[in-house]
Amino acid sequence: MSCRGKLDNLKYLFSPSSIAVIGASRKPGKIGHAIVKNLLEYGFKGKIYPVNPTANEILGLKAYKSILEIPDEVDMAVISIPAEKVLQAIDEAGRKGVKVAVVITSGFSEVGNVDLERRMVELAHKYGMRILGPNIFGIAYTPANMNATFGPKDILKGGIAFITQSGALGIALMGWTLLEEIGLSAIVSMGNMADLDVAEVSQYLADDPNTKVITIYLEGLKEGTGKTFIKLMREVTRKKPVIILKAGRSERGAAAAASHTGSLAGADVIYDAAFRQSGILRAITIEEMFDWARAFALQPLPKGENVVIITNGGGAGVMATDACADYGVNLYTLPDDLKEEFRKCMPWFGSPKNPVDLTGMAVEDNYYKALKVAYSDERIHSIIVLYCRTAILDPMSLAKVIVQAYREAKSEGREKPTVVCMIGGTDVYNAMRYLNREGIPAYPIPERAVASLGALYKYKRYLEKIGEHKTH
Amino acid sequence: MSCRGKLDNLKYLFSPSSIAVIGASRKPGKIGHAIVKNLLEYGFKGKIYPVNPTANEILGLKAYKSILEIPDEVDMAVISIPAEKVLQAIDEAGRKGVKVAVVITSGFSEVGNVDLERRMVELAHKYGMRILGPNIFGIAYTPANMNATFGPKDILKGGIAFITQSGALGIALMGWTLLEEIGLSAIVSMGNMADLDVAEVSQYLADDPNTKVITIYLEGLKEGTGKTFIKLMREVTRKKPVIILKAGRSERGAAAAASHTGSLAGADVIYDAAFRQSGILRAITIEEMFDWARAFALQPLPKGENVVIITNGGGAGVMATDACADYGVNLYTLPDDLKEEFRKCMPWFGSPKNPVDLTGMAVEDNYYKALKVAYSDERIHSIIVLYCRTAILDPMSLAKVIVQAYREAKSEGREKPTVVCMIGGTDVYNAMRYLNREGIPAYPIPERAVASLGALYKYKRYLEKIGEHKTH
Repeated sequence: MSCRGKLDNLKYLFSPSSIAVIGASRKPGKIGHAIVKNLLEYGFKGKIYPVNPTANEILGLKAYKSILEIPDEVDMAVISIPAEKVLQAIDEAGRKGVKVAVVITSGFSEVGNVDLERRMVELAHKYGMRILGPNIFGIAYTPANMNATFGPKDILKGGIAFITQSGALGIALMGWTLLEEIGLSAIVSMGNMADLDVAEVSQYLADDPNTKVITIYLEGLKEGTGKTFIKLMREVTRKKPVIILKAGRSERGAAAAASHTGSLAGADVIYDAAFRQSGILRAITIEEMFDWARAFALQPLPKGENVVIITNGGGAGVMATDACADYGVNLYTLPDDLKEEFRKCMPWFGSPKNPVDLTGMAVEDNYYKALKVAYSDERIHSIIVLYCRTAILDPMSLAKVIVQAYREAKSEGREKPTVVCMIGGTDVYNAMRYLNREGIPAYPIPERAVASLGALYKYKRYLEKIGEHKTH
Repeated sequence: MSCRGKLDNLKYLFSPSSIAVIGASRKPGKIGHAIVKNLLEYGFKGKIYPVNPTANEILGLKAYKSILEIPDEVDMAVISIPAEKVLQAIDEAGRKGVKVAVVITSGFSEVGNVDLERRMVELAHKYGMRILGPNIFGIAYTPANMNATFGPKDILKGGIAFITQSGALGIALMGWTLLEEIGLSAIVSMGNMADLDVAEVSQYLADDPNTKVITIYLEGLKEGTGKTFIKLMREVTRKKPVIILKAGRSERGAAAAASHTGSLAGADVIYDAAFRQSGILRAITIEEMFDWARAFALQPLPKGENVVIITNGGGAGVMATDACADYGVNLYTLPDDLKEEFRKCMPWFGSPKNPVDLTGMAVEDNYYKALKVAYSDERIHSIIVLYCRTAILDPMSLAKVIVQAYREAKSEGREKPTVVCMIGGTDVYNAMRYLNREGIPAYPIPERAVASLGALYKYKRYLEKIGEHKTH
């Protein structure tokens, strides 16, 4: 029954030429309406075929009574009809030569209909067709302008793929990523994982040039799939960083997860060991997962262990220093010649030790000079920039010189991982937005900046350990 | 030399009838200009006397050549003149009968001028005058509409007092609290703590009816003050919750803190033990400190250990359950009769176990009914409400029924600590703002909501341990 290894079909899941929406509807509020609308409005460039037995036209598109009537090849079928009608739809899709079915419909194993779910997968496999779902909110792949979900219409494009076993959370996070300006390559709702699972989807995304990092919300694996999961994910993490938020860490949380997705929760220590063996980074919160992912999506991996903090506030520097100890980030003890270089960038009462403290009197130029020193010297490998809002240094002006110094370094082949923390009000918030858009991850507290750089280091060290050290 | 116990003077620090600004300036950009401007524009109701040897008028106020020329009593003097002129100003202020001097000026012990600092304090004490500072950005007390800082003009009023040993961080956080809508009663910049220290200021705020919780950014105590600190802070925490962010936790961070504020950093384990013995809650990040403070400022302490989670998303419920284990929050195992009550609030496929899962089909009414059950039953002591954005439930509508249920419970004397987490985009963000304004702390990820409730529990248990259990 397994179709593992047949990853070929997955290209039709992410970049189909044509999509049939079985259960497309004219009625706003219906899932079958929202999916067609999202496909249209997010600008899907392939063909969209609404299938509905009673409609002639849906949202301006010609509708078909059956998928079999569509006068063209159909790569992907999105199915949103009652559970009892899904088998027939799968059969017709199979006969039509559909490569992959995205089964939105719920009412399968999650409510005890295990048998129906099994029969659906068997039927699909008879036709060589793969199934995503059932019980999902859909799939989106932004490079193809494909939003085949019934979540929000807009998705910001970027390098982060997000795979989720929880539907409600996934949809909610679609809105949240937009608010937080987190750029996504793909969103994949896994649901019951009757056929395609997290590892297979990750494997495909590992080779996707538009995906820089894979994030996964996981509640549990199916019984007996643990070893394969480790094996496949090891291959994935050789190519791309993977960050998992595995909920159900506590005993009670695991029980709640089991009743929610019907997953075999299993002892958390086992998951933890499996993730470590596979080189997967484990995040505890959503915020942490996307903080780290942002750094992976935007920044290169460091070439060495020496990190420098540049700050205008001693307090922020101290907090960042503590965080470096917490997250395994190695602050470089500056040799005298470098101290001398940094001293030239600051007032006399500044400190050229690491953290390099430019003091509250620092203006753009002080930061720019210090950044030039940090990017130029080969003994320094990563940079943490901190800023406390002062009256004499406008945050946007600072953001601009950070971007300038980073770009100049990049053009000279001296790009180094750079993370920023800026503390202050609305104008600081806007400056951080600007930095993020320009490719430099910025965070509102020092610990989040340091933890994100720490994640880059954790992954770099894993790659080195397995002999895949690729620092650019 | 010590004036400890003379807390009487501190009322003049927080609620002076009249303030002289020594070093007031007509020039925008000058500290002595910003302070007069902030006092005026934030609406200080007492008298403001600019002192400047060459100006006749500053920002529309009559200026005096010397404090001795002011034809009125002066409670507080804010001093912003070069360090070498401060002794004379202190002497004149003392002769004028000033009760407390806020010494903004830097250039004292932080740059090695230990002797000047010592002489300044001795001189002040000769007149029975206390000193805040030197090397600070000022003080604000919002119930008196007093913003005697050179930070941002606006401060949102609320129940959180914020004491900071770091100036740059403090000013930056003034802007940040405004952005995050964190309501403050007081902001106190401690600087070198030549005279007044964190414990004394905390002691005063412990009796301040407008302060619900005290937050402190600390880098280190002065040598020999540790035991007094513990003794005084024990008295404070009997009356008010205190949250400290002690930076310099790591060895390297402690060294950075020592060079920044000249504090005796000391081994972190000693601080940790001291905080525990004093009933002080220790936060690791700024975000955490103000998350918890928000909960203390807005919510009552719980009357018992039984906590219920109400959610519309299984995934969010699992993450919150894990966080409960992490933060010592006890999820109540619901007895059958309560399960039955909750079952009436949800669709048939929901789960009345704790987390109470109303499912993604939940609308306002489902939440309202479940909240009524939770507030009404005496066996439930605290409530965590979770929400993942769905198409069928508008976040603001949900926020409104949460506020309604909370108010109804309050009017019946059944107020219970309630924290909310909402996950989604802009409309969810706005609904959380609304909740915070209406007195219900709301957070963007489940862990932050749970951790904040966990802080209430930690403090409640401490009070019980020392026999000061006050649950309202």
